[in-house]
Order: sequence, then C-alpha cells, then structure tokens
Amino acid sequence: MLDNEQLDDLWRGELKILQKKAGFKYGIDAVVLAQFVELKSHQSVLDIGTGSGIIPILLGAKYPDAHISAIEIQAEYAEMAQRSVAMNQLDNVTITEGDAKELVELFGKEAFDVVVTNPPYFDKTILSHRRDKAIARSEILITLKELIDQAAQVLKPRGSLYMIFHPGRLSELMSLLSQNRLEPKLLRLIHPSLNKESNMLLLKATKGGGKELRVLPPLIVYQDGAYTKEIYRIYDDVSIEKERS
Amino acid sequence: MLDNEQLDDLWRGELKILQKKAGFKYGIDAVVLAQFVELKSHQSVLDIGTGSGIIPILLGAKYPDAHISAIEIQAEYAEMAQRSVAMNQLDNVTITEGDAKELVELFGKEAFDVVVTNPPYFDKTILSHRRDKAIARSEILITLKELIDQAAQVLKPRGSLYMIFHPGRLSELMSLLSQNRLEPKLLRLIHPSLNKESNMLLLKATKGGGKELRVLPPLIVYQDGAYTKEIYRIYDDVSIEKERS
Repeated sequence: MLDNEQLDDLWRGELKILQKKAGFKYGIDAVVLAQFVELKSHQSVLDIGTGSGIIPILLGAKYPDAHISAIEIQAEYAEMAQRSVAMNQLDNVTITEGDAKELVELFGKEAFDVVVTNPPYFDKTILSHRRDKAIARSEILITLKELIDQAAQVLKPRGSLYMIFHPGRLSELMSLLSQNRLEPKLLRLIHPSLNKESNMLLLKATKGGGKELRVLPPLIVYQDGAYTKEIYRIYDDVSIEKERS
Repeated sequence: MLDNEQLDDLWRGELKILQKKAGFKYGIDAVVLAQFVELKSHQSVLDIGTGSGIIPILLGAKYPDAHISAIEIQAEYAEMAQRSVAMNQLDNVTITEGDAKELVELFGKEAFDVVVTNPPYFDKTILSHRRDKAIARSEILITLKELIDQAAQVLKPRGSLYMIFHPGRLSELMSLLSQNRLEPKLLRLIHPSLNKESNMLLLKATKGGGKELRVLPPLIVYQDGAYTKEIYRIYDDVSIEKERS
C-alpha cells in the first residue's frame, strides 16, 4: 500500500479495496450498478473505466465462475486496482491499463457477453483541482457517443450493456443506444428520496433485442434520514457468493 | 342525453360529463394528464383525440382564460363531448370532429401554445368487440409517428407537448420527439404501487427546448389497497378554479 492510499472494507472484512486518499473514490453508484448486473454461468464481462476496480471485485466475488475484465486509462488507478484484485485472491478478474476508445483493438469484436460501465455523467467539464476526479466525472478522455459505440462493438449478439447514468441525458443516451442497435430493456430510476427528482438511472440494453422496455420500481436511497432497507440489502448482497464459498 | 349514454360527476356535482354506457370511458390516465398540464394566462391549447372531452372540460374549468380546442375523429364522441361542454357552460372550449392526421390543414402551423394528448398506447391491435375501444387503445387510425409529427407542426416555437404514454415504448417515443425537435423536459413514471413496474408515463416536451431532462418523483397510485394521498389530491385538484369562480 502506497502512502497516498487507504485500505477500505468492502464487505464484512472479507473483501477489501485500495483507494487514493485524496483521489476519486467509489460511491453508491458503483455499488448499485454492480448489484444491478445479472450474470449467467461462465459469462465474460468487461467493465469500462473501472477506477479503483470496485465493480470487477464485487462481480468477481459474487460470480466465481465468471471471467471479468476491466479497463482503466489512468495508470496509477489500474495498477492499484490490480493490487486490490490480488489482495482478494480473485483469479477470475483481470485489470488492463488502456484506452476505452480502443476496445476493439484490445479485446476484438464480439468478445463479451456483458459490458458494464459507470461513465462520466457530464458533457461539460466539472471543475476539479484534481485531474483524476475531473476525468471520472466529465467527458474529457471519452464521450458518451464514443463509449456506446465501442461497447456495442465488443458485445456479442444478444449480449447486454449495464450502465448507470444521469437522467438529464436520458434522451441522448437512448438515441445513441438505438443508433448502435442496443435496445433498452430495463430502466430503473434512482431517487435520493421518494419525493425528490431522480439523480441517477440504471439501464440494461441488449444488442439486437426486442423493442419492449420495462421500467422497474424506483430505487429510493434515503427515508427519514437513513438508508432504505433496499439500499442496506444491496450493500450486503453484492458479495453473497463469497460467503458461501 | 341519449339512451346509450350516462351522466357522470367529474367534480363535486359542479362538473359533469356524458359517457357511452358500453363504450370507451375515461380512466385515471386522462385525469393525471390533465393535472400534469400547466398553463399560463390566456394560452391556446389543443387536445388530440379527446374522446368524451374530459381533458378540455377539466382544463377549461381550471383555466377559465385559456382557449381550449379539442379534436376527435369519432363523430358520436365529438358530438357527445360538445353537449358535455355546453352542459358545463364552458365558453372557452371548442370540440372539433376531425382527423388528427390533418391538424395543420384544420388549425394551421404554429397555432397552439400547448398540445395535450392521451394517444393509443399500442402499435399492435388490442382486440375488442367494440371498434370505438380498439381505436382509443391501438394504432388503428393514427400512428405515434404521425401524431408526434402533427403535434410538432401545430405547436408554436417554445410551445409544449404534454402526453401520457406506455413505458414499453419510451425509447421509440424519445426518438420520434427528437426527430421533430421536441426536447423532453419533464418525465414522470407512474407505478400502480411502489414495488411494481411502471405502467404509464407523463412527459412534457418543448419545441426547440434545451437538452436537460428532469425526472420527477414517481407517481404511486395505490398503497395498502387504497389510492395514495397524491391521487386523491389530483382527483380533487383538477377543477379547483371552478370552485373559486
């Protein structure tokens, strides 16, 4: 562990993750996205822009027979994520340092059953004194259009993209998905509380899928100043397989 | 009142509406859509496919200085709606029998500040032994694409379209809106109860509007087997101006 890193508990002391003390840390978005993903036996998965590696670590622990790849463009994050994966002895997870604009060159076309991504939400730059935080939040190194285009190419036919995003750009997101023959199949709006506007959305789109979208019950984060039961359940559920093994 | 009609109370005995005993009757969708519409002083409004005329009657009573037009292709519904309007002495409401595919010919381009519609939800035909019900539910006489295209043409620049629709076709709806420069501004998902999938959506799109969508808190219809407080409030609120006058 480097001086500028901290070791955080991901789940009951059995899953751990390294994070930059002053850098971009994972939030509730990564946790709910990982829990939203449903894998079948032996599926291959790619997480685009993995940061500290939280999504491949959670999925790798929950689905021991899945093959999880993850790509991260910032070298110090990719390297730290590799150490977190090793620390958790997750042999089914591989972290690659690389550019998400070159997925086809790196992995080949139609390489994955499932693609997961928690991309930058904002097309305008959110100011930050730290470039690593700005890269995670704003379209500095990759646009939504480029990301969807790449994801569509590395997905197998009938493969699924799972993502979390900002509702303000839902119309743009749906247009880009349609243009890439990724049909929205599941949508779940996340609201900070039942009477507040949505600030995040979970979406599953399937390559060449049928045109029927299901809008799931809303995911409410807080009630009466505390996490809702569902959020507690999500935080506890993510690595349930680890316990069984 | 004809033999095949019934007279229903819309609001506290002060607003009434004629409906066909065996025909298509208005549902909660028309009531929540009418309440979702926000008008400024003296705006001109068109309701497309008005059926029994519930939406222009509710809006005409709530906004006495608005100019409300409504079009209905089925002659016997248009004629019955005219009698309901007269019965409520709503001088600001005009019902026209006509085809929604000919809005530009009927009303001219850029004629309205606001367009409202509760269109057929289904692109496949829902079987019904009654043709009037099938026309209200399925794309028999007009498609969603034709309807959005016509609505966009009769809206003034910066005018708004308010509609209720089925979430299964949200992606298609958003594409059609974008193609017609109608930018989605407000989206509200309606769920039968908090833990059920959405079965309707309310959407406001603005002609030439900016690209930021707000997703409002979900509208929940039932809790513990009864209407929620918000639904009761909506049913009571629709004609509040009538009481004041």
